[in-house]
Amino acid sequence: MKVSCIFLPTLIADRAIAGRICVVFDVLRASTTIVTALENGCQRIIPVATPAEAQKMKEKLSGSESVLLAGEREGRRIAGFDLGNSPGEFTAERIRGRTIIMCTTNGTAAILGAQGARSVLIGSLANLGAVVRRARVGEDVILLCAGKEGGISLEDIVACGAFVEAMVGEGSGSSGIELDDGAMVALEAFRASRDDIVGVLRKGNHGRYLESIGFGRDLETCAQRDVSDIVPYFDAATGSIEVRVAE
Amino acid sequence: MKVSCIFLPTLIADRAIAGRICVVFDVLRASTTIVTALENGCQRIIPVATPAEAQKMKEKLSGSESVLLAGEREGRRIAGFDLGNSPGEFTAERIRGRTIIMCTTNGTAAILGAQGARSVLIGSLANLGAVVRRARVGEDVILLCAGKEGGISLEDIVACGAFVEAMVGEGSGSSGIELDDGAMVALEAFRASRDDIVGVLRKGNHGRYLESIGFGRDLETCAQRDVSDIVPYFDAATGSIEVRVAE
Repeated sequence: MKVSCIFLPTLIADRAIAGRICVVFDVLRASTTIVTALENGCQRIIPVATPAEAQKMKEKLSGSESVLLAGEREGRRIAGFDLGNSPGEFTAERIRGRTIIMCTTNGTAAILGAQGARSVLIGSLANLGAVVRRARVGEDVILLCAGKEGGISLEDIVACGAFVEAMVGEGSGSSGIELDDGAMVALEAFRASRDDIVGVLRKGNHGRYLESIGFGRDLETCAQRDVSDIVPYFDAATGSIEVRVAE
Repeated sequence: MKVSCIFLPTLIADRAIAGRICVVFDVLRASTTIVTALENGCQRIIPVATPAEAQKMKEKLSGSESVLLAGEREGRRIAGFDLGNSPGEFTAERIRGRTIIMCTTNGTAAILGAQGARSVLIGSLANLGAVVRRARVGEDVILLCAGKEGGISLEDIVACGAFVEAMVGEGSGSSGIELDDGAMVALEAFRASRDDIVGVLRKGNHGRYLESIGFGRDLETCAQRDVSDIVPYFDAATGSIEVRVAE
């Protein structure tokens, strides 16, 4: 089986994702927030591209579902929305049983951009082991980094590297798993920084920005590994992200 | 000063290269071949995008200069060309004093794509120290990986990481040099694989391909570090790459 890593959604066109499992990583913060929200019992999450779309979707669903709007622009909660994009906001009290319509700058865009894949899963450090177990059925896997406004993100690549190492083991690769150059770069980046993952989140461009606007605690939350067995699954037919507990 | 790393020429549009120094890395093999050719006394190298352009340029120049055609498609010498893209072919006997018109799949395209920069230098492991010394005048530097047909290349990113480490030193970065996420990923990738650079070249996608078609020796050649003090400089006004010996 092959494990490939695409560093930015804009590079998807260059690679065949059709028919593959695609795991979308937006460590800071959409992926981690989605895992947290589903862990804490929200019904489903509907990713949308723009705040206007989010409002429209809310009007459409409000008769039948209990809806919350969540998302950010430039890291901050969108005006008029119920929640921002900090995992810590998505407590059981606030979100249990609710439908969350979510709009973030990079993460939801990456998820929507991956729709050509056979299966779109959401990956973060929080649910890394669970996603790895789900992927280990032997099919080719594509790891997709959300990045940050068209630039690559250190923390997404390092998280993909953690995924790759969990797949191939800690040796130098007689695992029978074929890595593309992106997956190899991610693996090396993870190996060089594995002892200080929160440091990775702090030194990347987006982590520094989040700290500067008061979201430093989110970095610690998003650096925690294997705190959930939830594997969020994006169903293109319903347009929503739901729970898939790892087998 | 800032050091940034762009993993593919197609990502240049997302970043401002205007007014910056840009170092183009195509370790396998165009950058290494260009350094070797200039080290061995060729007059200048004119990068062109297509074999047809190369032939046209040759006709234009043949009255006044002694011209050789060099380049590859799918790694092999282009039919009717004098030289392929193996550094070992560019011996002093063959190329001293000659003008080389060069057409390679990724490297020459990356060089031509970087023309918006104030200064375009050619970087490889062969001349890494010399390029670092040239860059250390304090200006912002952009490292551009040529990649391979739209996909990223492990060896280019690792070579950029070697550049970054030479700039910032071996510590964790109180050097006053600001790295973007790409430069940080490159640095980590280099640090994890520094003890086996030829192994890096052998395991990447393009290295494996070159070995499979009989160019395994080129990998050893291209893995050699600091064997030249030549800093090739692309002059957009003349359209040619010439020698700039590191001060």
